[in-house]
Amino acid sequence: MSGISDRSPWDELPVRDELKGKSPYGAPQLDVPVQLNTNENPYPLPEPLVARIAERVAEAARTLNRYPDRDAIELRTELARYLTRTGGHPVAVENVWAANGSNEVLQQLLQTFGGPGRTAIGFEPSYSMHALIARGTGTGWISGPRSEDFTIDVAAAVAAIAENRPDVVFITSPNNPTGTAVAADTVLALYEAAQAAKPSLVVVDEAYVEFSHRDSLLPLIEGRPNLVVSRTMSKAFGAAGLRLGYLAAHPAVVDAVQLVRLPYHLSAVTQATALAALEHTDTLLGYVEQLKAERDRLVTELRGIGCEVTDSDANFVQFGKFPDTHAAWQRILDRGVLVRDNGVPGWLRVTAGTPEENDAFLDAVRELMKEQER
Amino acid sequence: MSGISDRSPWDELPVRDELKGKSPYGAPQLDVPVQLNTNENPYPLPEPLVARIAERVAEAARTLNRYPDRDAIELRTELARYLTRTGGHPVAVENVWAANGSNEVLQQLLQTFGGPGRTAIGFEPSYSMHALIARGTGTGWISGPRSEDFTIDVAAAVAAIAENRPDVVFITSPNNPTGTAVAADTVLALYEAAQAAKPSLVVVDEAYVEFSHRDSLLPLIEGRPNLVVSRTMSKAFGAAGLRLGYLAAHPAVVDAVQLVRLPYHLSAVTQATALAALEHTDTLLGYVEQLKAERDRLVTELRGIGCEVTDSDANFVQFGKFPDTHAAWQRILDRGVLVRDNGVPGWLRVTAGTPEENDAFLDAVRELMKEQER
Repeated sequence: MSGISDRSPWDELPVRDELKGKSPYGAPQLDVPVQLNTNENPYPLPEPLVARIAERVAEAARTLNRYPDRDAIELRTELARYLTRTGGHPVAVENVWAANGSNEVLQQLLQTFGGPGRTAIGFEPSYSMHALIARGTGTGWISGPRSEDFTIDVAAAVAAIAENRPDVVFITSPNNPTGTAVAADTVLALYEAAQAAKPSLVVVDEAYVEFSHRDSLLPLIEGRPNLVVSRTMSKAFGAAGLRLGYLAAHPAVVDAVQLVRLPYHLSAVTQATALAALEHTDTLLGYVEQLKAERDRLVTELRGIGCEVTDSDANFVQFGKFPDTHAAWQRILDRGVLVRDNGVPGWLRVTAGTPEENDAFLDAVRELMKEQER
Repeated sequence: MSGISDRSPWDELPVRDELKGKSPYGAPQLDVPVQLNTNENPYPLPEPLVARIAERVAEAARTLNRYPDRDAIELRTELARYLTRTGGHPVAVENVWAANGSNEVLQQLLQTFGGPGRTAIGFEPSYSMHALIARGTGTGWISGPRSEDFTIDVAAAVAAIAENRPDVVFITSPNNPTGTAVAADTVLALYEAAQAAKPSLVVVDEAYVEFSHRDSLLPLIEGRPNLVVSRTMSKAFGAAGLRLGYLAAHPAVVDAVQLVRLPYHLSAVTQATALAALEHTDTLLGYVEQLKAERDRLVTELRGIGCEVTDSDANFVQFGKFPDTHAAWQRILDRGVLVRDNGVPGWLRVTAGTPEENDAFLDAVRELMKEQER
């Protein structure tokens, strides 16, 4: 169903001009044995958590004829508790907002602080949804620079902010698809530059932060009302299927996004499932530790095989460099392992899977590298 | 948490100018015995359905670490089957799209067919979210006319379309908050007028259609690629807490909204819960029949008490006319019954509840009317 079918009078549909000829976002969903292409957590939720989800959802279903808690107070309270415990900074319910995936959180932020006549900047390559959500909300997109080693060059980034005076600045840490963490000093320099240009919102996208060697940048929200940290339960909580994203910021930001959020946007079953998962935080963070070890092993072994590898603070690894990126992707796929070609020339991205999945991937790359040597 | 707190540096936040000073949408959530203010279905889901939801959600939770089916094929197939069975017109999976509540469906339509530099028209008073979602997507809003009896005056509406040349036309049938159904001939006249002005999308919002004395307008999509019918499971399926809206249209429209939908927007738990509810369609439509009878009783008894009542095809009734609308609302609330003041001068709206709830409401209005006679 994705893409534009030939049976459709597509050209006559009154869609917006800038959408014509575009394709929907989304990784190819191919049926192969080892899927390491969408940064999913390979560990299924433990059975006691599955049972608890069923229990809490059944409870919620008994009042499903009523609208859900519009403000998701219980869920935001528990998310605040989790952030306080793990993020190095105390936050309360009024600092936290939740939506259907961090994509919806970011969309609400752009509807509130971006939109028509305004611009947003990101330092690319980075999470490609930032630019797509900008397009979807009528926000102009500025592609900012990144160093050759995929870190943010502070001087170049500050210059780009000063020149373009964006309304919203995206900083992804750890960065997707490169895995690169951003230092607090860098965020502070960009925040100062952004505020000097004009009051603007700085969004630190920490979707993968639980996998980082570094601490969360959450404490930076203190005293900075225009700094937002966004998070997700898709990765560390092993709940990509749940679609639960959230943010932490000054309470005024939380108030502001409520002007554009669709009323009752977060279903009672989503709230119930997320609350159940938060009860099992310790178990799920145990899987995170296993994945960090596997991620580090991938980095080491790929380098041993002769690949270039970008330092990674995420649950995925960027590796290369291939003279023909697509051909390399295809050769790995031919061996039953699906990785991601994010359009960064020469580089591919692999998600840290189970030890067995990672072994299958490493074998495939080993053969690929041998072929290339011939 | 709603509204703007005084502790916030709200005035300094770089929010969009048009949002400044606005309040979030949403009915007051007051804790009173009889809540007839948000058009919820008063009947909780039956226990066998609650059990089936728990079962299907547990199954979905076992792969919750993976992203959900991005295209929601199984759910859209079952929604198509439901529409085919009840809507008087065969539709297939490629005609149907689903999202988190019909509000998100409408938001996606406006992002695709409205947006900056474009306009949408609705015939007011009508569902106030149409204008708010237009604002949230940067779409200009045009308030079209409605007759004094709350029907759509075809000549006046056609003239408004010819004059304003909107990109999107909303027709709500049955209309909220008035309960007024729209005849197929009226929709056709407005569709022709809209296409004559320029190719534009006509959205027929049928959130309450299962409660109507009239047939669905679904068959009108045949041969009209720019006509969309939107629906929800919130009302007839008694699942306001689920947030499941959907649309039926030409496959090209379904393809087009995928350019703006957030990837994986519909969670695995939402899809599982909706599929469970669809298995119990017959039981849930039985409740709809009970509610239609209660709605008709409300109309008859309110007229007997001496109220003016707008003919209703929905699960709610508009009644009046009160010299002081807010005072009447408050007097009914003082008797433990929460109804809705939708800002239509002289009129209030009551949701059809259980027979007991409706009796409590009628008693409250009876006393109010006696007071007013004095």
